[in-house]
Amino acid sequence: MKVYIGVDVGGTAVKMGMFAYNGDLLHKWSITTNQESNGDYILPDVAISIREELKEKDFTLSQVAGVGLGIPGPVMPDGFVAVCVNLGWKNVNPTNVLSKLLDGVTVKAGNDANVAALGEMWQGGGKGSENVTMVTLGTGVGGGIIVDGQMVAGVHGMGGEIGHFLVNTQETATCNCGNKGCLEQYSSATGIVRTAKKALTDSDHATILREVENLTAKDVLDAAKSGDQLAYDVVSRSMKTLAVVLSYISMTVDPEVFVIGGGVSYAGEFLRSMIEEYLNGYIYISPQKPKVVLASLGNDAGIYGAARMIMEK
Amino acid sequence: MKVYIGVDVGGTAVKMGMFAYNGDLLHKWSITTNQESNGDYILPDVAISIREELKEKDFTLSQVAGVGLGIPGPVMPDGFVAVCVNLGWKNVNPTNVLSKLLDGVTVKAGNDANVAALGEMWQGGGKGSENVTMVTLGTGVGGGIIVDGQMVAGVHGMGGEIGHFLVNTQETATCNCGNKGCLEQYSSATGIVRTAKKALTDSDHATILREVENLTAKDVLDAAKSGDQLAYDVVSRSMKTLAVVLSYISMTVDPEVFVIGGGVSYAGEFLRSMIEEYLNGYIYISPQKPKVVLASLGNDAGIYGAARMIMEK
Repeated sequence: MKVYIGVDVGGTAVKMGMFAYNGDLLHKWSITTNQESNGDYILPDVAISIREELKEKDFTLSQVAGVGLGIPGPVMPDGFVAVCVNLGWKNVNPTNVLSKLLDGVTVKAGNDANVAALGEMWQGGGKGSENVTMVTLGTGVGGGIIVDGQMVAGVHGMGGEIGHFLVNTQETATCNCGNKGCLEQYSSATGIVRTAKKALTDSDHATILREVENLTAKDVLDAAKSGDQLAYDVVSRSMKTLAVVLSYISMTVDPEVFVIGGGVSYAGEFLRSMIEEYLNGYIYISPQKPKVVLASLGNDAGIYGAARMIMEK
Repeated sequence: MKVYIGVDVGGTAVKMGMFAYNGDLLHKWSITTNQESNGDYILPDVAISIREELKEKDFTLSQVAGVGLGIPGPVMPDGFVAVCVNLGWKNVNPTNVLSKLLDGVTVKAGNDANVAALGEMWQGGGKGSENVTMVTLGTGVGGGIIVDGQMVAGVHGMGGEIGHFLVNTQETATCNCGNKGCLEQYSSATGIVRTAKKALTDSDHATILREVENLTAKDVLDAAKSGDQLAYDVVSRSMKTLAVVLSYISMTVDPEVFVIGGGVSYAGEFLRSMIEEYLNGYIYISPQKPKVVLASLGNDAGIYGAARMIMEK
C-alpha cells in the first residue's frame, strides 16, 4: 500500500496527515513550528517527525508515494520560495531540501491557499468537480484557483491572490499589502468588524452591536442573522463586494463551484445563500451560474490538498 | 507532411488557413458566411472549401492532422454550442458535424477570443510564453486566457469574458449584455467614443475633438497622442479602468504576458506603455510584473489559434 503525506506548514504549527489514494485520512498529527534561525529547523523537524510517525504506523519510507507541502506565501511553479515572511525563509526550495532529508522521496510544494482549494476539491465542499475556486474569509481573504484539477500557481506566484483585488479607489485606509481599497479590507473578518465600527460611528441607528465590547466578526454575523438591521446592512455590503469579485473570477476561469471557507464561513447557510444570490445577480452573460458551497474540511483542507498534489498529473 | 487547418468562423466571412507543425502559414483563403437557414450551410460550405483547397495544393485529406474551429460565441469544453447569435446556430456540436463532413478528421472548437489568444501565444505577441491573456479592444472588449498552453474555456463557456466585468455600479447606460457598468462600456473603441462625447458635453475645454464630425476612437487616440489634453484624459481614464481589470486577472491566473489586440491597439506603443504603467501601479503584492505587448497577427490570430488547438495535449 502506498501512502500520500500532506504537510501544511503554518507560522505556529505544522500539520501533517497520511492518506490513502482514495482520500482516506489514515493518521494526522502536528508539531510546533520552530521559527529560530530563519526557519532553518522547520524542514529537518518535519522530516524527523515523518520518519517517526511512519515507523509508529508500520510503514516504510519506500511506501511513501510522495510528500506535498503547503507554504504560507508565494511558491513558484518549480517549488522555489523567494520570501516567506511567516516562516523566516528566503530563497529556499523546500521541495529539494525535504526530498534530500527523506532519501529522495518526491516532494511538491504550493501556496497554502491554492493547496487548501485542491483539498476542498478532492474531499471537501467541491468534491465531484475539477473546476473549483476556494475563497477563505479569515483575518484576510485568500483564494485558490483549480482549473481542470490543476492548481493555478501563476507565473509570479500571484495565482488566486484575490484578497488584493482593488475594489475601492476612494479608500483612505491602507491594506497590509500597501495598497488602499483591497477586497480584504471589506470582506474578511477584520473587514466586517471595520465596516461595522464605521457604521456605528456614522449613524445613530439602534443596534445590539452598540452594547458589544471588543466587537468580532462573529458578533456582527450573529446580529445580522437575528435580524439586526445595521448588522445586516454591514454584512450585506461586505458580501456584495465579495460577490462582484467572484463574478470577475467567473468571467475569467469560470469555475463550476465556489467553496467558501475560513472563520467567517461558520455563519453557514445564511452567508452562503447571500453570496450565491448576489453572485447570480452579477453574472448577466450566462443563464448558467456557478454553485456556491461551504468548505467542509476546516483546518484539514491544507493536509488533504498537500497530499492530493502528489497525485496530480 | 501533416497539415493543420485553422478555421475562424465570423458573421460575415469564414477565414481559413493551412499550417505546418512549426507554425508556417502555408496558404490562407476565405469564403462568405452563409447565414441562411439558421447557418445550416456554414459547415458544409467550409468542408467543400477545405476539400477544394487541399486538392489545389496537392494535399490529401489523410494528410490533415485536424481542423480547429473558432466560433463567435460560447463553446462548451466538448465543443457544444447552445446559442451562437452571430451565426444563427442553436444546439449544434460543430465538431461532430464538420468531422462527419470530412470523413472523420479530428475537429476541435473554441470561442474565437480564446482561440485568438492561443494564436497570439503560438506565433504572435505572446510567442515564447505558455501563460498568456489576450485582450481585444474593438467594438467590444474580448478576452482569452491561456494557462500552461491550454485555453481556459470555463465550465459554462464564460472563460475570458472580461468585457463584462462590472466596473461601475453607478452607470445608467445599459451594456449589450443587459447589465450596466461593464468594462466594455469604457475601454472598447465604442467606450472611448462614448466617454469622449460625454467629456465634450460636460466641459467647455478647448479640444480639437470639437471640430471632428462622426467621432471615432481613432480620432480620440490620435488627438491624445498629439497632446490634446481632453482627449488624453479620456484615453487615460479608459485605460486605467482596463488596467484595474488586468490587475484582477494577474491576481487570478497570473499570466506572464498580456497581449493587447483589436482596433484600439493600432494606437501602438503610446497605448501599450500607458496600459503597462497603470497595470504595474495596481499590482502591489508582487515586485515582478507581467509584460504588456501588442498583438502581432492582426486578423489572422484566429486561424493561427484554431490550427494550434489541434496540437494541444
